[in-house]
Amino acid sequence: MSPTQSKSRKVKTGERAHEADHPTSLLAVFGADKPLRLDSGVDLSPFQIAYQAYGKLNADRSNAILICHALTGDQHVANEHPVTGKSGWWDTMVGPGKPVDTDRYFVVCSNVVGGCMGSTGPSSTNPATGKLWGLDFPVITIPDMVRAQAMLLDRLGIEKLFAVVGGSMGGMQALQWAAAYPERVYSALPIACSTRHSAQNIAFHELGRQAVMADPDWRGGRYFEEGTHPQRGLGVARMAAHITYLSDAALHRKFGRRLQDRAVPTFSFDADFEVESYLRHQGSSFVERFDANSYLYLTRAMDYFDIAADHRGVLAEAYRGTRTRFCVVSFTSDWLFPTSESRAVVHALNASGARVSFAEIETDRGHDAFLLDVPEFIDIARAFLESAASSHGLAGA
Amino acid sequence: MSPTQSKSRKVKTGERAHEADHPTSLLAVFGADKPLRLDSGVDLSPFQIAYQAYGKLNADRSNAILICHALTGDQHVANEHPVTGKSGWWDTMVGPGKPVDTDRYFVVCSNVVGGCMGSTGPSSTNPATGKLWGLDFPVITIPDMVRAQAMLLDRLGIEKLFAVVGGSMGGMQALQWAAAYPERVYSALPIACSTRHSAQNIAFHELGRQAVMADPDWRGGRYFEEGTHPQRGLGVARMAAHITYLSDAALHRKFGRRLQDRAVPTFSFDADFEVESYLRHQGSSFVERFDANSYLYLTRAMDYFDIAADHRGVLAEAYRGTRTRFCVVSFTSDWLFPTSESRAVVHALNASGARVSFAEIETDRGHDAFLLDVPEFIDIARAFLESAASSHGLAGA
Repeated sequence: MSPTQSKSRKVKTGERAHEADHPTSLLAVFGADKPLRLDSGVDLSPFQIAYQAYGKLNADRSNAILICHALTGDQHVANEHPVTGKSGWWDTMVGPGKPVDTDRYFVVCSNVVGGCMGSTGPSSTNPATGKLWGLDFPVITIPDMVRAQAMLLDRLGIEKLFAVVGGSMGGMQALQWAAAYPERVYSALPIACSTRHSAQNIAFHELGRQAVMADPDWRGGRYFEEGTHPQRGLGVARMAAHITYLSDAALHRKFGRRLQDRAVPTFSFDADFEVESYLRHQGSSFVERFDANSYLYLTRAMDYFDIAADHRGVLAEAYRGTRTRFCVVSFTSDWLFPTSESRAVVHALNASGARVSFAEIETDRGHDAFLLDVPEFIDIARAFLESAASSHGLAGA
Repeated sequence: MSPTQSKSRKVKTGERAHEADHPTSLLAVFGADKPLRLDSGVDLSPFQIAYQAYGKLNADRSNAILICHALTGDQHVANEHPVTGKSGWWDTMVGPGKPVDTDRYFVVCSNVVGGCMGSTGPSSTNPATGKLWGLDFPVITIPDMVRAQAMLLDRLGIEKLFAVVGGSMGGMQALQWAAAYPERVYSALPIACSTRHSAQNIAFHELGRQAVMADPDWRGGRYFEEGTHPQRGLGVARMAAHITYLSDAALHRKFGRRLQDRAVPTFSFDADFEVESYLRHQGSSFVERFDANSYLYLTRAMDYFDIAADHRGVLAEAYRGTRTRFCVVSFTSDWLFPTSESRAVVHALNASGARVSFAEIETDRGHDAFLLDVPEFIDIARAFLESAASSHGLAGA
């Protein structure tokens, strides 16, 4: 199978549901002979993984980089998004001449299992019933996502990744890759993440799920069939999440207490403050491109994530003897995945004898910094991959 | 008018709406000759203030302490709550032998205007229409709340307060009291608060309001008339707020990633983690005792609060020449009103030449610490009031 540059077409918002079964992406379909064994004990079969690929796999098949997306991301890391028409979600990091250089590396990004952009998830059709899965879809985990990605790489003939790179939930996948398949990962760049979700983060996710489920238009998860759309509940969930992605300082710098298009308060419940309009916009634009049930499943997967728990509570055991090179990155103002969490990962990697560097980037831009043009961060990612490429015998650009 | 020890009876949950017009409290009614001039320009008239009083006013009328309640508090600071049957919300601070010693001081606590426990608010009857106010109720501000309290004290014949004490929104009122009526406040104890609401805090409030308004049972604020109850939306709002009242460390200590009554995850959307059950409980118990529209109005009042804005942007101007003694208290793990906010208040008070002491209490219990038995905090409150009482010529207990 020869990977090709992905095609791109603009899908109208109303067609979003269509993307679940018939994505505007490359597609790997796994039949009855290739079930995905889930942590819950369920065999998911058949299933499909939608992915984008950029660049060219070299003759040695040694230049593949896997990008793992975050909670509300998808496979469209470096191309125009087929639903929103926006440019790739990580165009500061991935593209020609970027740290993840598509002129040099073969870059794959797949929609996670449980997602809503073409990989099998709750908005996909359940072949056993001919209906959409909805809440009958089995609960999935971060290790399940990674297991599906490993099957995709098998299908693409990639035995070993040069690098696995991701931020937030994508960073969790990078850490899981290195724990589950150490021999398949030459280097790992987990950013703004952790090996387990904190109680506070579980609390915020539960809040979001309750907001979705409180919307009568959610209909127990059968909103597609019933022609409704739980957009208010999902919008509230997104607003809550969005606050956690920014720092107090970033919100203050962006908005302060400035009023929206007026000099004096209205003494009403209109969006008087700029930050209110901003949040309302974040909520309403999100619901156009994301599926409410996928939001439930993916937040749940993050909540369950706890690498140490799978290794008798000792995180270092997960990486014992690893030869993977790690670069762990955190941001000073990230309060969703604070530096202390990254430091704990680094300590565990040190204890397991791993080769690890650690960069705490000074910025007030909060968790979202990993998606933004933060020069020090981009430079560190570039330097880490450059150095790993040299030692991996990959010729310079 | 002679204040009496408040009576207490248990009101069934279904009777909560009744409390708005006919509270289980002392009541001060202000007729057409005594309108409350609101910041919005509206004259609210007639209106009533429900309050509780404890202890005895001395002959000099010099031993009165006003307790200001927080967003979801009420006047039942030191007696059994008529709806929930729970003990007073601040029984660590107020009562016989407590720092706010009801054997020694005459203690008043009134429900804020806009509240739902007997002071005029959106769930009160609008005398002009005979219907409940709902969203026709005018937007109120922290200064409006304080102006109404001043009218109550006039009615009680209290010219000058020995102290005004409050935490969170109650602390905002204490700071507003000292700014608006410096000659009426001998000492002020604002706790875990600020003179203005930050962009992040406005964002969390907007999230809560959107959650309430997204609930179809909210019915544009006319849920009482329509026999509905926006309990799902208000429950989500409460969950969001509750996360901000705790610190990550407190959540971790309380719950960690512990599973609820089981050894292995259910791989479902049940409340697998203890923190999930806890939040669901917080949400559902809150909706039994609090009014959704009041939640909208009181969060809005906090958002608008900005003392400096009323003094050409210079906070120190608000307290220029004050003779009030201040003790400002913050908690290290409070991320809703972080110490930096309290420090800014203290700097402004210093700049205005005020007498101010500042205590940052080391605790991991977050914003909620002001309601909890944190010995260092209780000791500081006691010492501050004791010292102020001495210099105010109030004999020891």
